[in-house]
Amino acid sequence: MTDIEIAQKNVMEPVEKIAEKIGIDRESLELYGNYKAKISFEKLNALQKKALDSSSRGKLVLVTAMTPTAAGEGKSTVTIALGDGLRKIGRKSVIALREPSLGPCFGIKGGACGGGYAQVVPMEDINLHFTGDIHAITAANNLMAALIDNHIQQGNSLNIDPRTISWKRCVDLNDRSLRNVIVGLGGKIDGVPRESHFQISVASEIMAIVCLSKTISELKERISKITIGADYSKNPVTFGSLGCTGAVVALLKDAIRPNLVQTLEKNPAFIHGGPFANIAHGCNSINATLCALALGDYVVTEAGFAADLGAEKFFDIKCRMNGLVLNAAVIVATVRALKMHGGVAKTELSAENIPAVEIGFANLKAHIENMKKFGVPVAVAINKFITDTDSEIALVQKLCAESGCSAVVCEGWEKGGAGAIDLAHKVVELCDLTFEFKNIYPLDIPLKEKIEILAKEIYRASSVEFEGKALKKLNQFEEQGFGSLPICMAKTQNSISHDKSLQGAPKDYVFPIRDVQLYSGAGFVVAFAGDIVDMPGLPKAPAALNIDVDDDGIISGLF
Amino acid sequence: MTDIEIAQKNVMEPVEKIAEKIGIDRESLELYGNYKAKISFEKLNALQKKALDSSSRGKLVLVTAMTPTAAGEGKSTVTIALGDGLRKIGRKSVIALREPSLGPCFGIKGGACGGGYAQVVPMEDINLHFTGDIHAITAANNLMAALIDNHIQQGNSLNIDPRTISWKRCVDLNDRSLRNVIVGLGGKIDGVPRESHFQISVASEIMAIVCLSKTISELKERISKITIGADYSKNPVTFGSLGCTGAVVALLKDAIRPNLVQTLEKNPAFIHGGPFANIAHGCNSINATLCALALGDYVVTEAGFAADLGAEKFFDIKCRMNGLVLNAAVIVATVRALKMHGGVAKTELSAENIPAVEIGFANLKAHIENMKKFGVPVAVAINKFITDTDSEIALVQKLCAESGCSAVVCEGWEKGGAGAIDLAHKVVELCDLTFEFKNIYPLDIPLKEKIEILAKEIYRASSVEFEGKALKKLNQFEEQGFGSLPICMAKTQNSISHDKSLQGAPKDYVFPIRDVQLYSGAGFVVAFAGDIVDMPGLPKAPAALNIDVDDDGIISGLF
Repeated sequence: MTDIEIAQKNVMEPVEKIAEKIGIDRESLELYGNYKAKISFEKLNALQKKALDSSSRGKLVLVTAMTPTAAGEGKSTVTIALGDGLRKIGRKSVIALREPSLGPCFGIKGGACGGGYAQVVPMEDINLHFTGDIHAITAANNLMAALIDNHIQQGNSLNIDPRTISWKRCVDLNDRSLRNVIVGLGGKIDGVPRESHFQISVASEIMAIVCLSKTISELKERISKITIGADYSKNPVTFGSLGCTGAVVALLKDAIRPNLVQTLEKNPAFIHGGPFANIAHGCNSINATLCALALGDYVVTEAGFAADLGAEKFFDIKCRMNGLVLNAAVIVATVRALKMHGGVAKTELSAENIPAVEIGFANLKAHIENMKKFGVPVAVAINKFITDTDSEIALVQKLCAESGCSAVVCEGWEKGGAGAIDLAHKVVELCDLTFEFKNIYPLDIPLKEKIEILAKEIYRASSVEFEGKALKKLNQFEEQGFGSLPICMAKTQNSISHDKSLQGAPKDYVFPIRDVQLYSGAGFVVAFAGDIVDMPGLPKAPAALNIDVDDDGIISGLF
Repeated sequence: MTDIEIAQKNVMEPVEKIAEKIGIDRESLELYGNYKAKISFEKLNALQKKALDSSSRGKLVLVTAMTPTAAGEGKSTVTIALGDGLRKIGRKSVIALREPSLGPCFGIKGGACGGGYAQVVPMEDINLHFTGDIHAITAANNLMAALIDNHIQQGNSLNIDPRTISWKRCVDLNDRSLRNVIVGLGGKIDGVPRESHFQISVASEIMAIVCLSKTISELKERISKITIGADYSKNPVTFGSLGCTGAVVALLKDAIRPNLVQTLEKNPAFIHGGPFANIAHGCNSINATLCALALGDYVVTEAGFAADLGAEKFFDIKCRMNGLVLNAAVIVATVRALKMHGGVAKTELSAENIPAVEIGFANLKAHIENMKKFGVPVAVAINKFITDTDSEIALVQKLCAESGCSAVVCEGWEKGGAGAIDLAHKVVELCDLTFEFKNIYPLDIPLKEKIEILAKEIYRASSVEFEGKALKKLNQFEEQGFGSLPICMAKTQNSISHDKSLQGAPKDYVFPIRDVQLYSGAGFVVAFAGDIVDMPGLPKAPAALNIDVDDDGIISGLF
């Protein structure tokens, strides 16, 4: 059976029943259909308070991964299985995940609801419109753009230099034709012509802000602080100066509240906020994490792509901004991905190849070492595929042990929570350890140095080469008082480096920073490494070719 | 109190209770929060069957209007008051309205939930994201655009000539800078550069298709028939040839089902589909109308803007496609609008001005005459403002009587349903009349002639001037077999003519057709008259300046 067939065969509990399991009453829920709900403002506020007090919150477990194959290594699958597995061993777990973007659903990668018997449901709804959060973000982002261009058209009293506008429009789709556009053509009544850009909604600063804001006040403060460009005297212009922040935040009033759904095993999962981890900060919302921490003894969350991207940003951006500390990290690895990093072609990944696993382990080892630099207790979860041989798995376990890290097989895809019981026990054990957490870079050093530390410590480059434009902008940001912001690196997910062709554990290379962008509302500086773009394209044969819906509204082909 | 304050002070019934009133059980509802619900596919199918049988459906009443002032003449307000008024006199009424676009909410006109004590609620939700229908339409429309450009980028096996692509992207906002753009810049990996356009989502063919389709099969058939451009041999290319229709329809599976909400008086209202009436066909969905007809003895619905736009399209597009016949029409007029058509400046509309009312009546008279050309029983509803004097109202009633039409005062804004009891009695009386309905043009004449009939019979022009490009395209459409489609005129709402400065009842003028566009999926040809555009702009001081939201999520300033 395909993932969607398994999900559709499953009989869900009404979401009220799921909420009951974690002590949320019907009055604190706003239903979206029978199986999705948002948490009321009142309840959200109460849960935030509880979770922000470190003595009354649960333990926080991050699921991250080695550098993945194109299909991903099953991070969501392991996260869900681990949540279900913890419940199976009697631990009160709550899952917190990101919500999927439409881009990958119709592109290559598919949705983001896990797989096999470790899924969150209703998967079709979650993968498509869900509760409308991303649509709200798209609308808010594009309302801002329309207001900015209208301000210029209507007399430009703020003296904005149209050539400096850095605010991009967005769509939540893979649409390369919108990367570089000219808007405002047609004549005097049709706007002021200028070069402009669209990004995918999940890379937008509004998505980051929704994910990092706890309250409507905080949303307002952050959105008003967004830098949209500069005036003709080169002073930065913030969105707040247009006087329309309230209208933009009105569009986001529901999007800031977490969504509750269930796993196939009817355990609670918050799914909220969906920034990509390659071109954005890659973590679900702080509000979802706080709700989960207030309601569960163990919170299992994931950060996107490999540990060089999602996990690093989880530590250095999300946790640091909110004073959260992780209790344990799990690195998901697959024998297939190890073989890929060992040089095996995509078509040969199903055949046993012991030497390739050994070579490819360099990648996993680098991620284990990276996690240890943060000081957190870490284990590897081997997400088992039916093509994996016992010898391959034994080898991975041996190599992990030699790197000072346990590796536990996870059969969540095949068996759900029952396939993650060993992993659950291991995580409980890790959570009882004490350790000293260290961020990889401090905030009070220059932006340029932060990027250099990331490049050397995490991506293992020998040096960083900044394009002149990038360096100039970094200096500007420092002068404008943004020097103490963290860095959100935009780089390929297919390598620890900036170059997707460099597999395994690249070293002795130069890490190139092509451009940087200030997200003064979200509170970080985005650095673009190599040829990464913030608007993906569709492949020759997109997933859209296989998706269909029948007369009763039953969807097929979504994965 | 402002409209939003009245709405927020009101205590709503849970939507299940509203559904109960019209015999819809909980199992047939999909809740969106506590006060909004979609109808299940199963129930929708059953209601469609009942309503398509003319012996078992209710009577259909259309609320239309005279040519409005910029603020609108209160068509939604009268529609809601009439629905409530019919309930007050013991008639089982159901209301069917369009859902509001975000464009006007943040622009000039505001939302579309009625006003005063004749509103549908929750007005903030309905005006902003509601149940996500328009967001789904935007996403579906833009997925199509991304797939089309990707097809060309990936080898263009269909040989599409990029210069012929007529498919536009859309946003549901007023954003003039997107009217004319160049996409695909940046180099080989960033697409094929070409001129392109965005329209507001509510003018898109997808919006029209969602409003005109009863089932998912029909959605698929219509979307696959959409003409997206031509190949290098000048043959039209349909979207279906890309093989991704199922994926687009998957995004629309919920958007096709009507939304149930309530009036302030706790009566049922379906709000579903929101095409503008100036640049689109201007009616709520056929599914909402069918549900209402199956469940109510009297269905009160509205079509956008004045009778030359919404009502004409309601008859010649929506009703004709579905074999529906209206039972009565109500033309909403205000003393203010009559004075405006009588030449009074906007700032002087509150002062009594009997001569101006008499002159301005020419506009209302033209609309009464137009309605009579369709043969339908018609009455005028005078939507009363506190500044109206008794003499002004008496004059309007006298002039209407001389034109063979009753004029009933409606005080719905001030009194809700109680202010529309006279109107309700009048409508019941009209619905008992028998009459012969006539469309204004037959389908089996050339497209050009249909436009000429509309221009002469409804807009009262002496002749039509077609730009060469428009004429050439009309001939093409005829050759391609689309000659029997109806016309959807895109023209200003501020005049019966194409020219917003021509008030009253213009005549002896030339009606100019600038361009035409084939909507082969929706099943009509859009004709653009004068300088009308399908993407509005924002004014110098947009409504967005006044909208805000507090920490509990309570919105203010929306109207």
